[in-house]
Amino acid sequence: MATIVFCSVNKTAQTSARRCLMPHMKKLSGAGESRLLSTCIHGNSVAFLPGTRWFSRGSSVRFMSRGTAGRSASGGTRRGALALGAAAAVTAAAAVAGFLANANHFQRAEMATKVSHAAEESEPDGDILKRCRGFMSLPVTDVGVLEERKEEMRTRMEMLIMETQADFCNALQEVDGGTFKVDRWQRKEGGGGISCVMQDGKLFEKAGVNVSVVFGNLTEEAARQMKSRGKVLKGKDGKLPFCAMGVSSVIHPKNPHIPTVHFNYRYFEIEEEDGTKQWWFGGGTDLTPVYVNKEDAFHFHNTLKEACDKHHPQYYPDFKKWCDRYFYVRHRGETRGIGGIFFDDLDSPSQEEAFNFVKSCSRTVVPCYLPIVHKRLNESFTDEEKDWQQVRRGRYVEFNLVYDRGVKFGLATPGSRIESILMSLPLTARWEYMHEPANGTLEAEMLEVLRNPKEWV
Amino acid sequence: MATIVFCSVNKTAQTSARRCLMPHMKKLSGAGESRLLSTCIHGNSVAFLPGTRWFSRGSSVRFMSRGTAGRSASGGTRRGALALGAAAAVTAAAAVAGFLANANHFQRAEMATKVSHAAEESEPDGDILKRCRGFMSLPVTDVGVLEERKEEMRTRMEMLIMETQADFCNALQEVDGGTFKVDRWQRKEGGGGISCVMQDGKLFEKAGVNVSVVFGNLTEEAARQMKSRGKVLKGKDGKLPFCAMGVSSVIHPKNPHIPTVHFNYRYFEIEEEDGTKQWWFGGGTDLTPVYVNKEDAFHFHNTLKEACDKHHPQYYPDFKKWCDRYFYVRHRGETRGIGGIFFDDLDSPSQEEAFNFVKSCSRTVVPCYLPIVHKRLNESFTDEEKDWQQVRRGRYVEFNLVYDRGVKFGLATPGSRIESILMSLPLTARWEYMHEPANGTLEAEMLEVLRNPKEWV
Repeated sequence: MATIVFCSVNKTAQTSARRCLMPHMKKLSGAGESRLLSTCIHGNSVAFLPGTRWFSRGSSVRFMSRGTAGRSASGGTRRGALALGAAAAVTAAAAVAGFLANANHFQRAEMATKVSHAAEESEPDGDILKRCRGFMSLPVTDVGVLEERKEEMRTRMEMLIMETQADFCNALQEVDGGTFKVDRWQRKEGGGGISCVMQDGKLFEKAGVNVSVVFGNLTEEAARQMKSRGKVLKGKDGKLPFCAMGVSSVIHPKNPHIPTVHFNYRYFEIEEEDGTKQWWFGGGTDLTPVYVNKEDAFHFHNTLKEACDKHHPQYYPDFKKWCDRYFYVRHRGETRGIGGIFFDDLDSPSQEEAFNFVKSCSRTVVPCYLPIVHKRLNESFTDEEKDWQQVRRGRYVEFNLVYDRGVKFGLATPGSRIESILMSLPLTARWEYMHEPANGTLEAEMLEVLRNPKEWV
Repeated sequence: MATIVFCSVNKTAQTSARRCLMPHMKKLSGAGESRLLSTCIHGNSVAFLPGTRWFSRGSSVRFMSRGTAGRSASGGTRRGALALGAAAAVTAAAAVAGFLANANHFQRAEMATKVSHAAEESEPDGDILKRCRGFMSLPVTDVGVLEERKEEMRTRMEMLIMETQADFCNALQEVDGGTFKVDRWQRKEGGGGISCVMQDGKLFEKAGVNVSVVFGNLTEEAARQMKSRGKVLKGKDGKLPFCAMGVSSVIHPKNPHIPTVHFNYRYFEIEEEDGTKQWWFGGGTDLTPVYVNKEDAFHFHNTLKEACDKHHPQYYPDFKKWCDRYFYVRHRGETRGIGGIFFDDLDSPSQEEAFNFVKSCSRTVVPCYLPIVHKRLNESFTDEEKDWQQVRRGRYVEFNLVYDRGVKFGLATPGSRIESILMSLPLTARWEYMHEPANGTLEAEMLEVLRNPKEWV
């Protein structure tokens, strides 16, 4: 295990984060805008760690792909997008959850009218190396390779997830004053990742922001499983080269008035025998508050809705429902939080359009969350409020360990990087026997919302 | 939901607990024997709660039955004992893990020589009603019914598990000074349970002791699953009446020098079309310390070994190995604790003998654990030691939510009593990113033991 030091001034990323955040700050009162101007980015200790890892969310593909989004499709034909159980993609030994999904969810005609808006999300100027200076670490893929295939989607997506990681980490470091620990790790079968964790900061109990880029060949077993789900994928000599990448994050603040946030954006490519590439995007952003705050909920959902609406009017309503269904703690009869958006198998109307949508979503992470953090960070709280937060954290752990398909696959996959998978767990949690808030309390109000998901915008 | 108050003086149970404990206290130094003489038992609030529950441990049958115990059998014939996924027995809708297991693990000849010792474990004098006065609540089954079928195994076992619950609760109340909350709940399909929980006591952060007695008919689905595992069970009109009962407990102390303990003893009966009853016992007791203490580990394992040796010389070595295999956090490469014993599918050499063994084990719970509590309760601890305990608690949660088959089945079973299933989770837990104790520390010593299970006696 080698350890190197990677120094970055991260000017680009800070500027980008600030650019994203400013217009949104104006909408929420009480945030100290001046705080945003202070900077605290320094070099990070970067450790190259062996092992493998894949983002721990969003591998709900098997179940969720038959959910709301698919059903809301208006006449789309099944084009056979292949969704890969996220953690399963980590090693050749892993089981892969493949299936056929209706990816052409929305009418092309409608989508065409949105292209001009989506094009607003242009890629930053400058060459690859220059853009990398703003990242938390060098990208997973060699910069020379990225320069060579600059126009390919996998390069553009890797740059986007690195940028998203940096923007979010920088925004969090700025408001917290703490520094992320940056761990680089490599996957022996191909690829690797960058895990950024800030633990026991001033504001954040635990904040993790992960990037992973893994590639290799799908096993025969994986191919067989795909076939059993109706998709016949022909590989060269039985091998199906694939590439999977994503950024994912969970932030657990100390103050119970600042909600927990989670997001994950990912991209898959798989190559068939004849050279045809199957590709798709997935992702989402969702909020888990400890207390209901309608203003925060509106801001969060509305920011997501605005990002979605630029691309398709059905995205927000469909992906909002999908999110409520996925983040559901079944044995409690509660959603994990107040939702947000969640989607998978997105391979329409074009790769460019789908990428633009994902780009909009990724760039919405900071403006979705940071204004809430800034607004709430000075709010005082009682021991009882802290206890309720801890009980809710217990539920978060229950969801992540019992239901989250990415975590389950990851834990079952030999050679997974466990620390990156379980990075999403809070620093502290609590389980009280027969905890039930009294009627009329703010805790009961929260539970009511979790038991009956609401429309916030 | 009705609430009644059940008052008990619990003299019988206290006397019994003290009787069990005294000889063992002499072996461990530092215990305040006089503490044992103080009493603190009062009436408990007993709530009749709807819902269902079955003990959350030991449903490892599907995997474990092919483990060490089976393999150590010397020439036993397969008699087709049927093991039932514990939580699966809760409702008719639940999946049932049935299978054929070698239950005749040990030669009858050897066992015969042990009968006289085993017979030492006689049942207490007095009628059913008189014995019930010592319990934490009235038994699940109506006392009149128990009186009527006094000689049947299910009555004897229900009395044993009620007695075990009372003995253990009384011993814990005595040392802690706190009082157990007693919840009675009913299962609409048949039977119910009694959950005793003490939370945030003087010594115990969370202490739960559960009894459940459930019965009904196995579904066609359950029967089908059994058939797929090779066992053809013929029911009357497709129905297989069953009865399952057990006592289970997890105790999480506050002081990191007092280990967490878990035990579970259970009995199953299933009736075939021709009236033949299949029956078997299962159970175990295991210890999860935060720091290695060889003296405590020896006491705990040796007390179990003595109980086992009275019945069969292979019981302790086989069931010790089985325990290490079952309580294994695979993704961490660590056992949950330092083990103890674990067994299932025990239906030999006779029902009487198997029951006597389970009785010995049940009556060993207090002498296994309480001397350690008494010895360690006044030990001071640092914040760092408390933190390490919290990290270990996190691992405990990981095992229970990710691997424990009882918990998994329970959570997946509609109508389960979630609070009783998750009662085993600690009040508080912690997840630190990349936590790895420094070489040479006591924390590293603990990890080493968990990574390489030891022989303690």
